[in-house]
Order: sequence, then structure tokens, then C-alpha cells
Amino acid sequence: MDITSDTHSQHISRQFNQELEELKTHLMAMGGLVEKQVQEAIKALLENDSHLAEKVRDNDRQVNDLQIQIDDECTRILARRQPAASDLRLVVAVIRATSDLERIGDEASKIARNALSLSEGSNNVKGLVEVRHISEHVRKMLRDSLTAFARFDTDLAMQVVHEDKLVDDEYGSAMRSLMTFMMEDSRSISSVLNVMWVLRALERVGDHANNLAEYVVYLVKGLDIRHIAPEELDENMLKKS
Amino acid sequence: MDITSDTHSQHISRQFNQELEELKTHLMAMGGLVEKQVQEAIKALLENDSHLAEKVRDNDRQVNDLQIQIDDECTRILARRQPAASDLRLVVAVIRATSDLERIGDEASKIARNALSLSEGSNNVKGLVEVRHISEHVRKMLRDSLTAFARFDTDLAMQVVHEDKLVDDEYGSAMRSLMTFMMEDSRSISSVLNVMWVLRALERVGDHANNLAEYVVYLVKGLDIRHIAPEELDENMLKKS
Repeated sequence: MDITSDTHSQHISRQFNQELEELKTHLMAMGGLVEKQVQEAIKALLENDSHLAEKVRDNDRQVNDLQIQIDDECTRILARRQPAASDLRLVVAVIRATSDLERIGDEASKIARNALSLSEGSNNVKGLVEVRHISEHVRKMLRDSLTAFARFDTDLAMQVVHEDKLVDDEYGSAMRSLMTFMMEDSRSISSVLNVMWVLRALERVGDHANNLAEYVVYLVKGLDIRHIAPEELDENMLKKS
Repeated sequence: MDITSDTHSQHISRQFNQELEELKTHLMAMGGLVEKQVQEAIKALLENDSHLAEKVRDNDRQVNDLQIQIDDECTRILARRQPAASDLRLVVAVIRATSDLERIGDEASKIARNALSLSEGSNNVKGLVEVRHISEHVRKMLRDSLTAFARFDTDLAMQVVHEDKLVDDEYGSAMRSLMTFMMEDSRSISSVLNVMWVLRALERVGDHANNLAEYVVYLVKGLDIRHIAPEELDENMLKKS
């Protein structure tokens, strides 16, 4: 290879690295927007702020636009750069991740719609303590999974995977309390159902954060850990790969 | 290009086409399994067949295994064949589709778990008429979206996209009736909630079938129609692309 073509290929490779960096930056921007949507949807619910709820509902379009834009970027990189090995895994992981982030955006929008329904009804809404508690847990999972993605940090990613089980337990127990409220006071049924949908949406956000964490392990280690129970995933297994 | 290398490249291209055909076949096998899971979960619920419900719940592992296997195939094709244009869109569409099919499998499994809870309770379960009705509608959407994928049939795909709106309306009206049942008889709350989770799962299956249909339009026309309201998607727009 002569010097000219070597310089040329270095140039291509620098451009390519820059494209991959930009792809990551855009994914993180989408992640940041989605985190904000979840946070504001919960704030709207807890503070009975229908104006904020409407804002969250309307902002969902921005999340959707970002998904289309980033997916386009991925397809362009696949077509033009024909990435291999870890670069290819990054692009595939980003394609999967935008889909989860978009669905988290949908869940935020559902929470906002339930906040709007609740703001029309009575003031004495049951179950908000549980919503606050689970939402904090789930938002931490989401934040950590995005940080793990940004830093290619598999330890942090595995922490998120383990957290998901705890959220599922908290969710189950909160749903049982809410069912008791309903049975005790049938006038509360409609508002308790709204709170149940919110909890279900939060539990889904936790599932999607868990998926994001799994993609981090995939992209760093080349190991597909979806559908493996966290208890089977001990550190040995990750180190071996 | 001399004859030898021409024969060689024809050989490569024949192999590549065969790999893409196999990829489609595997996706259709996964689709078929997922269809069967939804059908049997609903049958288990309507016929109060807890044995069948357990089978569906346990079979979810097969769906998950197929997802991992097909996603692996996609990554291998991207790495080795570096597909372009419509071949690339097919591989990207399959990566997206396995994720939706896997989630439909999860929903079938949730329906099966609710069928098991219901089979432990009273015999007089409300809302099964609605479940039967919506499940038939949703199963048709799923079947059509898979057929559309197999045949690259964008007309059929667009039909599915339009159907999704109808299912959402049916779902909303069924949920309102179920809430009335709850309010009229608080002893029914627990079983009505189970039926509500089943309806929500079916509504999600409809959403995923809708996503599959959107991928067909993407892979055939190179047009990303996610997040465009069906009423904005007139035929002109599809023809122009």
C-alpha cells in the first residue's frame, strides 16, 4: 500500500469513527429526551399539573422523529461503511435501542394521559406513594442503562438487569394494595384504574431499561444475554466471553 | 471481468439470495409459532383449560430462542455479505420484526398467566365475549401482517395499519364495559382485572402487528411510515416513493 492510499484509508477511518461517535451522541440525546418525558409525566401526575401533562403528551412526536432520524443514520452507516465486529454490534445495538427508547416515550405519554384523566376527578387519589416510589426506582434504572451505554460499562449494565427483578416485585405488591383500595371503596375504581395503568407503564419502562442494559453487554462482549435469567448470569460467564 | 470470476460472483450471489430466503423462512417460522401461542392462550382462557395455559407459558422460551437465532443470522449476513439497498432493508426489517414477534410472545404468555389466575377463581367471568371478539380481530391482523411480510404485499400491510385504529376503539369500549361490571359488583373486581390485563395484552399484540405491517412498507418502498397517522398515508404518498 502506498502512502497516499494509506492516508486515504486513515482519513476514511477517521470519518467513520466520527460517524459512530455522532450516532452515540444522537442516541444519548434521544435517551435524555425520553428520561425528561418520564420525569415530567410523573411530576404532572403527582402535582396534578394538567398543563405539564399536555406538554409531555405533545412532545412524544419529538421522540418519534428522533427514532426515525437515528434509524436512518444506522442504515446509512451499514450501507456505506459496512462495519464489522464491534462497530457492527454498535450499529445493531443502536437500532434495537431506539425502539426501546421510543416505547419508553410511549409509556411516558400514557402516564401523561392518565394524569389528565385523574386531574378531572376527585382529589383523594390512592396509590400515589407507590407511584412515586416505583418511578424513582425505574428512573434510576433508565439513567444507569443510558450511562452504561455511553461508557460501554457492562458492570453498571448488569446492575440494571438485577434491579429489574426488584421493580417487578415492587410492582406486584403495589398492584395488590391498589386492588384492596378498589374493593374497599367502589367509588375509587375509576381513579385507581388510572393509577394502575401508570404503574404498569412504569414497569414497562423498567423492562425497556433492562433491554438497553442487555444491549450494552451485547455490544461490549458480543454476548446476547436476552432471555437469560439474571441469576444464571454470574460474573464468570461474562468474563469468559 | 473474466468468466471465472463472473461465475464466482454468480455463485456468491446465489448463495446470498439463498441466505436471505432462509432468513425470511425463519422469520415466518417464528411468526407461525407466535400466532399459535396467541391462539392457544386465548383458547386456554375461553375454555378454562389450565393445562393448555401452562403449555403456552412454558413455550415462550422457544420464541425467545428463535429471536436470538434469527438476530444472529442477521448480524452474520450484515458482517459477511454487506448487503445494500433492498437487501439491507430486508435485514434491518427482520431485526425489527423479531423484536415485535418476541414481544407478542410475551403478551401470549401474560394472557396464559391471567388464564391460570382466572381458572382458580369463580366460574362466572365477565367480559369473555369482548375477549373473543377482539382476539379474533387481532389474530387476523397478525396473520395478515405476516402474510404481507412473506409476499412483500404493501396493500395488505396498509390494510393492517388501518385495522389497528378499529381495534383501539373496540378496546376502549370493552374497557369501559368492564369498569361498569366492577362498579356493579365489587366481588368481581379481581377477575375483571384479569380480563382487563388480557384485553390490554391483545391490544398490544395489535400494535405489534401494526409495526410488522409498517416494516413491510419500509422494506418494499424504502419508506418509513412509523409515526405517520394512517389517515395521512394515502395511496398517492406510497406511489410517489
